Amino acid sequence: MPKLSIHRLPMAHPGDLSVLAALIATGELRAGDIRAVIGKTEGNGGLNDFTRGYFTQSLMLLLARETGEDAASLAARLPCVLSGGTEGALSPHYLVFAVDRAQGGARGLALGTAFSPPTPAAAIGRNAQISQVAQAVREAMAQAGITRAEDVVLVQVKAPCAQAPGPEARSPDPRVLMALSRAAAAFGVGLALGDILDAAEHDLLRDLNRFSNRASISSGIEVTANEVVVFGHAEGWAPGLTAGVAPMADLLDLGGVVAAFRASGLDAAPSVPARQRDRVLGVIAKGEPERNGAIRGARHTMLGDTDLDAQRHLRGALGAIVASVAGTGQVFVSGGAEHQGPPGGGLVCVFARA
Amino acid sequence: MPKLSIHRLPMAHPGDLSVLAALIATGELRAGDIRAVIGKTEGNGGLNDFTRGYFTQSLMLLLARETGEDAASLAARLPCVLSGGTEGALSPHYLVFAVDRAQGGARGLALGTAFSPPTPAAAIGRNAQISQVAQAVREAMAQAGITRAEDVVLVQVKAPCAQAPGPEARSPDPRVLMALSRAAAAFGVGLALGDILDAAEHDLLRDLNRFSNRASISSGIEVTANEVVVFGHAEGWAPGLTAGVAPMADLLDLGGVVAAFRASGLDAAPSVPARQRDRVLGVIAKGEPERNGAIRGARHTMLGDTDLDAQRHLRGALGAIVASVAGTGQVFVSGGAEHQGPPGGGLVCVFARA
Amino acid sequence: MPKLSIHRLPMAHPGDLSVLAALIATGELRAGDIRAVIGKTEGNGGLNDFTRGYFTQSLMLLLARETGEDAASLAARLPCVLSGGTEGALSPHYLVFAVDRAQGGARGLALGTAFSPPTPAAAIGRNAQISQVAQAVREAMAQAGITRAEDVVLVQVKAPCAQAPGPEARSPDPRVLMALSRAAAAFGVGLALGDILDAAEHDLLRDLNRFSNRASISSGIEVTANEVVVFGHAEGWAPGLTAGVAPMADLLDLGGVVAAFRASGLDAAPSVPARQRDRVLGVIAKGEPERNGAIRGARHTMLGDTDLDAQRHLRGALGAIVASVAGTGQVFVSGGAEHQGPPGGGLVCVFARA
Amino acid sequence: MPKLSIHRLPMAHPGDLSVLAALIATGELRAGDIRAVIGKTEGNGGLNDFTRGYFTQSLMLLLARETGEDAASLAARLPCVLSGGTEGALSPHYLVFAVDRAQGGARGLALGTAFSPPTPAAAIGRNAQISQVAQAVREAMAQAGITRAEDVVLVQVKAPCAQAPGPEARSPDPRVLMALSRAAAAFGVGLALGDILDAAEHDLLRDLNRFSNRASISSGIEVTANEVVVFGHAEGWAPGLTAGVAPMADLLDLGGVVAAFRASGLDAAPSVPARQRDRVLGVIAKGEPERNGAIRGARHTMLGDTDLDAQRHLRGALGAIVASVAGTGQVFVSGGAEHQGPPGGGLVCVFARA
Repeated sequence: MPKLSIHRLPMAHPGDLSVLAALIATGELRAGDIRAVIGKTEGNGGLNDFTRGYFTQSLMLLLARETGEDAASLAARLPCVLSGGTEGALSPHYLVFAVDRAQGGARGLALGTAFSPPTPAAAIGRNAQISQVAQAVREAMAQAGITRAEDVVLVQVKAPCAQAPGPEARSPDPRVLMALSRAAAAFGVGLALGDILDAAEHDLLRDLNRFSNRASISSGIEVTANEVVVFGHAEGWAPGLTAGVAPMADLLDLGGVVAAFRASGLDAAPSVPARQRDRVLGVIAKGEPERNGAIRGARHTMLGDTDLDAQRHLRGALGAIVASVAGTGQVFVSGGAEHQGPPGGGLVCVFARA
Repeated sequence: MPKLSIHRLPMAHPGDLSVLAALIATGELRAGDIRAVIGKTEGNGGLNDFTRGYFTQSLMLLLARETGEDAASLAARLPCVLSGGTEGALSPHYLVFAVDRAQGGARGLALGTAFSPPTPAAAIGRNAQISQVAQAVREAMAQAGITRAEDVVLVQVKAPCAQAPGPEARSPDPRVLMALSRAAAAFGVGLALGDILDAAEHDLLRDLNRFSNRASISSGIEVTANEVVVFGHAEGWAPGLTAGVAPMADLLDLGGVVAAFRASGLDAAPSVPARQRDRVLGVIAKGEPERNGAIRGARHTMLGDTDLDAQRHLRGALGAIVASVAGTGQVFVSGGAEHQGPPGGGLVCVFARA
Repeated sequence: MPKLSIHRLPMAHPGDLSVLAALIATGELRAGDIRAVIGKTEGNGGLNDFTRGYFTQSLMLLLARETGEDAASLAARLPCVLSGGTEGALSPHYLVFAVDRAQGGARGLALGTAFSPPTPAAAIGRNAQISQVAQAVREAMAQAGITRAEDVVLVQVKAPCAQAPGPEARSPDPRVLMALSRAAAAFGVGLALGDILDAAEHDLLRDLNRFSNRASISSGIEVTANEVVVFGHAEGWAPGLTAGVAPMADLLDLGGVVAAFRASGLDAAPSVPARQRDRVLGVIAKGEPERNGAIRGARHTMLGDTDLDAQRHLRGALGAIVASVAGTGQVFVSGGAEHQGPPGGGLVCVFARA
Repeated sequence: MPKLSIHRLPMAHPGDLSVLAALIATGELRAGDIRAVIGKTEGNGGLNDFTRGYFTQSLMLLLARETGEDAASLAARLPCVLSGGTEGALSPHYLVFAVDRAQGGARGLALGTAFSPPTPAAAIGRNAQISQVAQAVREAMAQAGITRAEDVVLVQVKAPCAQAPGPEARSPDPRVLMALSRAAAAFGVGLALGDILDAAEHDLLRDLNRFSNRASISSGIEVTANEVVVFGHAEGWAPGLTAGVAPMADLLDLGGVVAAFRASGLDAAPSVPARQRDRVLGVIAKGEPERNGAIRGARHTMLGDTDLDAQRHLRGALGAIVASVAGTGQVFVSGGAEHQGPPGGGLVCVFARA
């Protein structure tokens, strides 16, 4: 019976895997047990942010050395979801999710992963991608032994994009295609979980009231398939870990953040008290600048413009709010939350020790 | 007996004073009653941020037209404290403080202003400036009728700097001189209020454990004297307004933010409830990136560097936390909090309708 | 018979018109003779760059005071074309074009201005705007007495945009609309001058091989009509000034820059020699990052992205090349050169004393 | 008798060594012959630019695999000088310098390398570092067989810095220490070459009229010793390559740039003609924003500020001027030119095929 463990680790720079290497060296963690990595690196989060590639190369080097499996094969089976940009209170870190199959128990937090077939540029943002993601979610649920959609806490997806979309792509602009890919993946998750009942490509980025606040999606040119990680509760896993998720109605919805921490079993009044802080194993949040240019009627200046990019504004702001509740800047906060929560809002998911 | 009123007003851009003009036109506010203006404009907050000058020019044009007093004379008696940078959840706005001398009551929130003599570049960051500010604080207290230091809630100072400091200046670098000017003004406030007992120039920017968390200081090359606004409780003013202040121990001290709102009489659990939101008249906060590069042990990336400037990081993060409690992005948040709160921390001050 | 004079003036900041004020005070220039102002201010050149508005407000205040005409009326007849962003070697400055009608001579450099009717958002980037601009060019030529299209050296246009385009606009994105407005104005100029023979709205931003390298277009939300300034040679004007223009084939076309200076009668070998430098009265250049991502096969990184904006890259690069030939950083360089020169290239126009 | 070869190679991203790998695979270049690498990566050039580390890791992996030597040992003997920031017209690329000892001839372009002993933080910017660099320059000259100082064309140094300078360091600020390290290395080069006769630590960053325009220095926390590469003319090397160097008097000194290309034997009138462009093997340039805030009397806005960093401005501007003469954006341009050319100016060095 498997047991999930979650390790929140700091990095001194995007090529620094020394803390993970030490855990492996001391036997605290087996390299072969690692099933997914989710992290924040300190780049600018844009097209010319190479901190993600640097971290991934360094991680795969370490794991290849430790497991004997080659780096390309590892990359093809191990989801590694990185988000660039640690603006403001955020701190570069990564979450390592490992599964020890020798242990386990009655009912506990479960993890499953799946990769869709490669999604060509022409299929991104179309019904084909929506179906592929929905199917991968079902596979990952099956792998984890999660039988009911309501037992899923969060689905994290790394969805593909194309740097040079061809003429058959839905948009010639890689950034538009990136948003379409996130949207299609969110629809796929929503369909598989029943959060979205009826999903078709023409609603992507249009009907923002269709969303799943259990979907957290990144997209990037560095992957060619949809990489899916499902978290939920299932029989046959070890107890000891909890997870909770809650939507944020808008960027200032501090109550929504507090609710997610409480859903994971932590007190948050409003911050997690110092005595519970080491029970916070990982936090994942998504959000977006309001598209109408104002939050609760007050004009914001998160422009996609020659000054500071809108996503950097957003991560700095949302990250600080979530960190002020968590009591640590080691929280994963990322923009681009289309169909992953209410329009202008987002979601917060908390993993904790029970 | 005078009555203080506080107006929190939006701007569509830094030259837009239309909402104030409308209040004056309808008679809701007399231009001649305006005693101080504190605002956030949407520039980058650095040396080449001209949104402050644009707003000031536009404000003085309006007031000159309405009062008949010329713009230069207005600028010499009316403190106008502007901070550039509305990163993240922050929203461009300004607070207009007006005093109607015809009304008034027993005990209430009071305001006094004073300008020090011009401070030449050679005196910035030295004992001379410290004494001048302390004296100006005493004059402003006297003007407001505040008799005890403990009745002061907040002292806002706009302190001078020099774009081209001469050889006799304490630093040849305008940005270092700017920090020294803020520090000296904070020491002056601390001395006048008894928050700092023993203050001399050699401790500026060195002994950061000497601070007053009732001092909020900006500095800039656009002023030549120390412009002081004192808020506190005094006899002979109208009731109806309250103010509260609280320190923040560090950037993630959400409890400190909540405490400031509660000190002003509002419920904050953790956000100000929707029914009380229009009682929030104004919020002023100061903070700083931790100088040791980490918050509660987690490395931050708020570097003064070729990427995003540290102050922009800071305003985006602190602003979002304060805004999430206030329920609005119209909060005044500014960096450069040397000696204005605990090292790495800051302060929050809330003005509210009782 | 009119005489054109061109004054290249520095500014200490975007609100500083003191050098112009001094010229007016000493009688060297009559405020009423000013016919157009073209300048570079030191903002970021984006949507939240308010240095243009600040300069314009300050200019109109000065001219209103000097001429007795009110500021709104001045703004409605005096083209004021500002471009934000003085990256790299560029220096904030403005060119004042004045016409003294009492003087004049046989044949010389001529200037004419015209404003189109207001262009509503729905007409931007459409055939209507193309025709309006072409008509305004013809009016400005007639006013200047320029009878042949080949005698026109340059047409500078400030074209309108809309911050919140309605549903009937050609694009809901203000930045796309801004590009469409520049493109339509360039087509209008090209039609009027015969540089483009057949121009229709569906070719805008599509057929980039249709261009006029005598068109220099800015667009912005601060104007509602197309403001046109035509420069060329005509009878009845005073001699003494020359102007030359040349296309740039790509960003590295140093030969094209040199050609423009030589066309104005200056030696440029490759720089203007020190003894001729005060004959350089004004330089206007437009350019663009190559859309295919490479210059002569070498990948460039001028991305519209979370890092440095593409237009800031472009202005810094093109500005330095032009300034290195001119021998001064006081050159007007602006991006957004759609249909204003070969794709990926641009144009340079030089005004000089003969 | 050795033969030097220079390869100018593009990269698709900072981890892309595929073009070098292909040269090695086809036998065009032996991995073991590589003696130095100098390159530009596309980061922001600041403290949080990790494109340099990513490239270095990728390079050392490739060379370790090809040579069998481990990566740490390679890094300890192979100078790898990287500069982040390809603003404007610049293009990410790297120069590979290889020496084939089997070939050679009478007199030709020679290369020598040397590493100083590790320089602790306390010795950076002090006489100790100056002497160490001078000694390493002499060793590298001896290795190359260059007997006379006047035969040296350029000395490229990668000098160390410390991220957390201790109390014994000359400055607690890593960026000041970085400038001191560059200055000390430039003094060391100048002493060894006789360009600076009398050099002591108290003149560093003070007496800017002492300089060597044959010194090109980078500093960074990623190295602990001074890594020195000397280029010059010597007996016993193969002919066929040339190199020329020239100072730039200021940022607009286009004539200085042209002079460097001519010194390498290329026509530059003003650009290198298309038929000679493939003879340009590598270009290295250094420059600086004028410290007095103006170039030839015209104010510049290259501020070290919350807006665009001064070094990004500088690289974009200088890079474009040099690229416009070279005819390609693949030129190495870097800021921080203290004592490496006239104050406010810099140097250009060109490697060409004869």
